[in-house]
Amino acid sequence: MAGRTLLQQAVPITFGVKAAGWLSGLDDAVDLLGRVASTRLAVQLGGAAGTRSALSPHGAAVAAALADELGLVAAVPWHTNRVRVAELAGALGATAAALAKPARDVILLAQTEVGEVREGSPGRGGSSAMPQKRNPVAAIATVAAAAAAPGLVATLLAAAAGGEHERAAGAGQTEWTALRRLLVGVGSAAAWLADCLAHLEVDPERMRANLDLTGGAVTAERIAVALAGRVGRTEAHRAVARAMAARRPLVDVLREDAELAGHLDGLDLDDLADPAGDPDAGGDIIDTALWRHHSGRKPCNEAP
Amino acid sequence: MAGRTLLQQAVPITFGVKAAGWLSGLDDAVDLLGRVASTRLAVQLGGAAGTRSALSPHGAAVAAALADELGLVAAVPWHTNRVRVAELAGALGATAAALAKPARDVILLAQTEVGEVREGSPGRGGSSAMPQKRNPVAAIATVAAAAAAPGLVATLLAAAAGGEHERAAGAGQTEWTALRRLLVGVGSAAAWLADCLAHLEVDPERMRANLDLTGGAVTAERIAVALAGRVGRTEAHRAVARAMAARRPLVDVLREDAELAGHLDGLDLDDLADPAGDPDAGGDIIDTALWRHHSGRKPCNEAP
Amino acid sequence: MAGRTLLQQAVPITFGVKAAGWLSGLDDAVDLLGRVASTRLAVQLGGAAGTRSALSPHGAAVAAALADELGLVAAVPWHTNRVRVAELAGALGATAAALAKPARDVILLAQTEVGEVREGSPGRGGSSAMPQKRNPVAAIATVAAAAAAPGLVATLLAAAAGGEHERAAGAGQTEWTALRRLLVGVGSAAAWLADCLAHLEVDPERMRANLDLTGGAVTAERIAVALAGRVGRTEAHRAVARAMAARRPLVDVLREDAELAGHLDGLDLDDLADPAGDPDAGGDIIDTALWRHHSGRKPCNEAP
Amino acid sequence: MAGRTLLQQAVPITFGVKAAGWLSGLDDAVDLLGRVASTRLAVQLGGAAGTRSALSPHGAAVAAALADELGLVAAVPWHTNRVRVAELAGALGATAAALAKPARDVILLAQTEVGEVREGSPGRGGSSAMPQKRNPVAAIATVAAAAAAPGLVATLLAAAAGGEHERAAGAGQTEWTALRRLLVGVGSAAAWLADCLAHLEVDPERMRANLDLTGGAVTAERIAVALAGRVGRTEAHRAVARAMAARRPLVDVLREDAELAGHLDGLDLDDLADPAGDPDAGGDIIDTALWRHHSGRKPCNEAP
Repeated sequence: MAGRTLLQQAVPITFGVKAAGWLSGLDDAVDLLGRVASTRLAVQLGGAAGTRSALSPHGAAVAAALADELGLVAAVPWHTNRVRVAELAGALGATAAALAKPARDVILLAQTEVGEVREGSPGRGGSSAMPQKRNPVAAIATVAAAAAAPGLVATLLAAAAGGEHERAAGAGQTEWTALRRLLVGVGSAAAWLADCLAHLEVDPERMRANLDLTGGAVTAERIAVALAGRVGRTEAHRAVARAMAARRPLVDVLREDAELAGHLDGLDLDDLADPAGDPDAGGDIIDTALWRHHSGRKPCNEAP
Repeated sequence: MAGRTLLQQAVPITFGVKAAGWLSGLDDAVDLLGRVASTRLAVQLGGAAGTRSALSPHGAAVAAALADELGLVAAVPWHTNRVRVAELAGALGATAAALAKPARDVILLAQTEVGEVREGSPGRGGSSAMPQKRNPVAAIATVAAAAAAPGLVATLLAAAAGGEHERAAGAGQTEWTALRRLLVGVGSAAAWLADCLAHLEVDPERMRANLDLTGGAVTAERIAVALAGRVGRTEAHRAVARAMAARRPLVDVLREDAELAGHLDGLDLDDLADPAGDPDAGGDIIDTALWRHHSGRKPCNEAP
Repeated sequence: MAGRTLLQQAVPITFGVKAAGWLSGLDDAVDLLGRVASTRLAVQLGGAAGTRSALSPHGAAVAAALADELGLVAAVPWHTNRVRVAELAGALGATAAALAKPARDVILLAQTEVGEVREGSPGRGGSSAMPQKRNPVAAIATVAAAAAAPGLVATLLAAAAGGEHERAAGAGQTEWTALRRLLVGVGSAAAWLADCLAHLEVDPERMRANLDLTGGAVTAERIAVALAGRVGRTEAHRAVARAMAARRPLVDVLREDAELAGHLDGLDLDDLADPAGDPDAGGDIIDTALWRHHSGRKPCNEAP
Repeated sequence: MAGRTLLQQAVPITFGVKAAGWLSGLDDAVDLLGRVASTRLAVQLGGAAGTRSALSPHGAAVAAALADELGLVAAVPWHTNRVRVAELAGALGATAAALAKPARDVILLAQTEVGEVREGSPGRGGSSAMPQKRNPVAAIATVAAAAAAPGLVATLLAAAAGGEHERAAGAGQTEWTALRRLLVGVGSAAAWLADCLAHLEVDPERMRANLDLTGGAVTAERIAVALAGRVGRTEAHRAVARAMAARRPLVDVLREDAELAGHLDGLDLDDLADPAGDPDAGGDIIDTALWRHHSGRKPCNEAP
């Protein structure tokens, strides 16, 4: 399929590479939330001003027992140290971004003029006014639910920064409303994206047809690299640019180019200009993303 | 000193407990930034569309060598998986909050009517118009620098969510401006807070004098707890409320209260009403915060 | 051209209607900024605490003379009433949105697979790696510059809300940095959009070709409305849905539909299915937008 | 009372000047909301893609009748021109700031150590744990409700900027949730502030006592201005600074200052050092704010 940068076809990629990018982002979010859940959700037991004075000298023991009961991390009172809440907010905000990314790609790939994917949930996505439409409603709902996250994270970070003395005058109330909305929104986005991806229908023929829309131009980078080995980088770029301007199949124009005469021997231009010519490109990236996903290995690093 | 909730004197605390809360927040931020710095700052080498096709089959090896050269984490291309940037943004936003918290407390403690701390940097904080003023300028500069963080984090999270296909149309440019501003702002806040705290002058006499402002009312919680053991919780609260209404020293009024007659034997009311009566309250919290700070132990959990 | 809702072709529109929508938004922004500029940019002269005590009793006269000198509105001191700044921020934020809207449409219309517009600035938009690309760089720069606005507006609104007493401890410094960045960003977005639109090349043939992509489905709403007059709304929708499913030209399938037999007499299906069949649709909307733009009439209301 | 800048006592002001500042901000917000309500809440009737094609040629007439029925402004379809929503969001954000400002001042003035105001709603503000507390709960609730506004406005501005083509893929859903939350939050803040101010108890004796805390230092600006007429600005500032350092009543020290000997004749130092010496300062500001409030005059300009 076409890889697209700035929403222009750029170079051929595979759908696997694109999906591996989605997977990496989602696995990053899972790691991030997992770390916050296991190490930062702590019991808060401090009394009115965080000294546990009414429990003295049993404060730490009571807090530890309570943490155990609730499945939370034991911790010193953190009534006015809201970094925990800020971290949770940041992790949820990053998760919202990771969820919105595939959804936005689905919406763009589902455009009438692109048509490379569609949502397959039966009976979904119709329009009451326009019977022909098949809207990617799950992807749209994902994007919509995630879009509230940046503003809510900003509210939570401002509240975390604004706590006065031993208990803030207002920031606490602000915090719990915003955190609840953020949890609901990110959870909703996750549910919608799961629905979207579980029923996604991919159309390889449209992918191939779209690659052919530009008469081989999508392979111009690869051709220019090959030509550069023969005539130098500058002249290679010039030759490709001349060929593009002709708005005919790229390879045909290059073969007629007088300045390249004698420099094309032994170059398999048809192979270079075949958008499907390098089907394994990025295969190692897919392997790494899958290995990480299945092994539960934390860092999205070069693999095994 | 007075512990203050909702900006009202609540119960006596020590300055050590307050400073331990500041330290915990800052250590949380150090941990968070350290984790991002060591595991998430990764080399990005993917070519135009993230497939490394021009380097094939040496892409992973070149990326690993580059990462090594630059001291970055090796990683698969992440051009359109912006969770890394979102995580860094979230960590910086949480750090801004951790920095603003002590600065806001300093500003509040330095109020003319409170006067418990002042900034001691020589020659700083004067006002051209008002010769008497000694403004906590470093704390104010900390708060001001940190205040831009929530909005910048929101911008970065929205950019991370908004990337189209293999390279976003606009989100990248947005991201780098916002990230640079965020780094500068948080760094500036850190520098100002370091200056503020390094020269902070603490006034124990004003702390004590402020505790005495309310005629012992700041110890009402402790007294009520002690009375509750004698007359029950409801009657204890009623008695303290009656005593507060008299606006005279709390202990004097309680001793005259007919309904408490016979119930006060053996209670050392003067000791209970001494705001400095429990100087060790929260000592374990301070110990834990210091132990964690010096040991470099990551979780701010109950201690050794 | 195709009108697109949820990024799916919906009904035929004209490029004029689309551009009229852009114009309305930009004229709204011009009105909004004009109102703030003429009525809300006021001189602030109040002395240290906003009482003008050092100028007494000439404060109002001095302020009026200063306002006159600077071309600002005369006003009572507003050191801690930051609603003026909040209004300016809100107006700039709305302007950023009005600027981003046409730019985003241009980016989407310029996609390789859509190709209905391109940026015509000579020598612009090429890619060093991919010689075939013609990126809509001005539109992208518009979107990128505007994307910082929501976060900056949030920062300014929080600062406006956060002013303590007669002069805020920090909010003022926060405000001026953010306001300067917001002014620069919105100005930059406006300059980029002006460049983009001044050189925009529109491709009517691609518009027409895209309308034909769906075999007339883009006119399904219009056909369904016409059929509903014959067979009722429910059956009309069912018939169109059946026809869509055949993935052949819509009109052909409808004519073969046994359930519609006898109901199509006198209906000019070819005319209904011609995407260009109602070229005047929305003409009144264009007229109103232009009338407002040229007359300087403030409200974007129904016209003359 | 003390005027306070950067939370330090600066110069004497009156409570009237402070309250006039609150009133000006609230009247600004009323004007702003009123303008949006009367000119920008418009009917949206455009059909699927904003062309009113299904109503042609009666679109404008139907829209006008609908606007009349609903009490809205008649307007051309604005489905994807979201400047109206952005303006409403901005106006609500500015209103939230105007509401938070007096509430924050009340919270600060109600501090135990300041004690110049308290909330008088009967039976409100007690603490279950600390019987002595009288928390300014209405002011705190105002600040908390208003604190969500900046993030919500950012969400709405981003949605307004992000609309694709004739109907946005997601931004609309985002918008309505955020707008509803913003309306509820600002309405709630307004209700709480009305409660707070309706029952506010002001304590003139504490105001006076706080002015006396600094031994006349709060009048240092006024004294320095008077001295400057005798010995020049530089020497006047130096003399006041020397006197401040002695931490005794300012006037006493100045009279003993050898360098000022002979320069004080005819200066009524006691009058200058009386914080209540200029009770009319800012009276014109109060008059203007009240005149505007009662006359309904829109601009907060210099008056009648």
